[in-house]
Amino acid sequence: MQHGEGLGVVGVLGGMGPLATIDFMHKMLKATPAASDQEHVPVVVSSIPQVADRTAAFRGEGASPLAAMVASGRRLVEAGAGLVVMPCNTAHLWWDELGPALGLPMLHLVDAALAEVVDRAGAGARVGLLATDATIASGLYPNRTPPGSGLQWLLPTAGEMLQHVMPGIAAVKAGDLPTGRALLGQAADALARRGAQALLLGCTEIPLVIDADSAPLPVIDATGALARRAVAWSLAQRAPLAA
Amino acid sequence: MQHGEGLGVVGVLGGMGPLATIDFMHKMLKATPAASDQEHVPVVVSSIPQVADRTAAFRGEGASPLAAMVASGRRLVEAGAGLVVMPCNTAHLWWDELGPALGLPMLHLVDAALAEVVDRAGAGARVGLLATDATIASGLYPNRTPPGSGLQWLLPTAGEMLQHVMPGIAAVKAGDLPTGRALLGQAADALARRGAQALLLGCTEIPLVIDADSAPLPVIDATGALARRAVAWSLAQRAPLAA
Repeated sequence: MQHGEGLGVVGVLGGMGPLATIDFMHKMLKATPAASDQEHVPVVVSSIPQVADRTAAFRGEGASPLAAMVASGRRLVEAGAGLVVMPCNTAHLWWDELGPALGLPMLHLVDAALAEVVDRAGAGARVGLLATDATIASGLYPNRTPPGSGLQWLLPTAGEMLQHVMPGIAAVKAGDLPTGRALLGQAADALARRGAQALLLGCTEIPLVIDADSAPLPVIDATGALARRAVAWSLAQRAPLAA
Repeated sequence: MQHGEGLGVVGVLGGMGPLATIDFMHKMLKATPAASDQEHVPVVVSSIPQVADRTAAFRGEGASPLAAMVASGRRLVEAGAGLVVMPCNTAHLWWDELGPALGLPMLHLVDAALAEVVDRAGAGARVGLLATDATIASGLYPNRTPPGSGLQWLLPTAGEMLQHVMPGIAAVKAGDLPTGRALLGQAADALARRGAQALLLGCTEIPLVIDADSAPLPVIDATGALARRAVAWSLAQRAPLAA
């Protein structure tokens, strides 16, 4: 199979979780100006959910997901993807190993989200972060924050993580969206009470139950930010700008 | 890439249209008993919407979609799929050429839908069919109906096809769901008035706007029927029954 760079085929390394993969694909469609099937962006997806739990691995309580992520990503290489994106925040903890193993360009979800935070909330904003234990404990968001942005991070407390955030994410993964919505909504409310000016949804399960209409403050959806960047990449491949 | 038969990897030849592909993936999730990511079914998807319009080709007014469908399907072969399914009714007009070109087992969407019609509406039922001009004019559903089932088909009139069904499907493909819902709802009402006892949604765009709650009579969703069969295939691969 020849690689699809010319066509701008986006490869989605998905399945983490599978509903978040579908949400990402839907957000790519919504980000594409199209009046017919043929105007939509070409996408190949590897949604292989048999990847070890990323948070458990980070905590040292479970096997590494890396080998399964590489195997899943190779399916995209074989299928002719020209770019790889990964709609799972926590999986980005293995970013440095994954890119060289696949040999394709990738877009980083956290960088896409941070660019939208700065655009929408403004430099110096106080941003509440909802994410998995591993994403928060690894410093994934603060460590990639552009130095000049002055963004200030506000995190859930350890108790809120254990009682609301992690059980809420697990409920979404199990398909129990009402429970997930209630638990994650409590965590969002707590961040708002402590002075967050914007809410960053930094786990791809969270925007499945919290959105701009239901949240107590402006929302930045990392999934949507990555989807918009992926569509822009593909459209640029299709019709390169004249120099 | 080795083929994924052991893992039960379902290959989805999608993009016809892309929103219907997402709907199909979502219906696979809903058909899977799973409490965590890892219990979901592994899926690879080729959603390449740059496939010539199937209805135009059938009418002799456009290029054949076959070469693009084969190229898209080969991405699934390369990605290690063990089975191919195609969430587009009209694309099944090229079924006989596609299977040998890919060399993988496939499940036929129309056969999946017909089995559910017989189960739910009963032998001898009068079934209203909503589908594209090409699906209807080719006799795709009546020609595959099991001889002993006694199903009776009721079709939209030519005027209803031109005024309601085809513009309704085009509106869904363009992302204008309210217009699609209104037009396709009128076509469903007409079939109900003429005595249909059940409604078969025989185009994957139609269940995006018409469902069991909104339809004037019991609904059989061909997309959902195929999704349930694909999940059953994958689960059987994972844990084969003892002989």
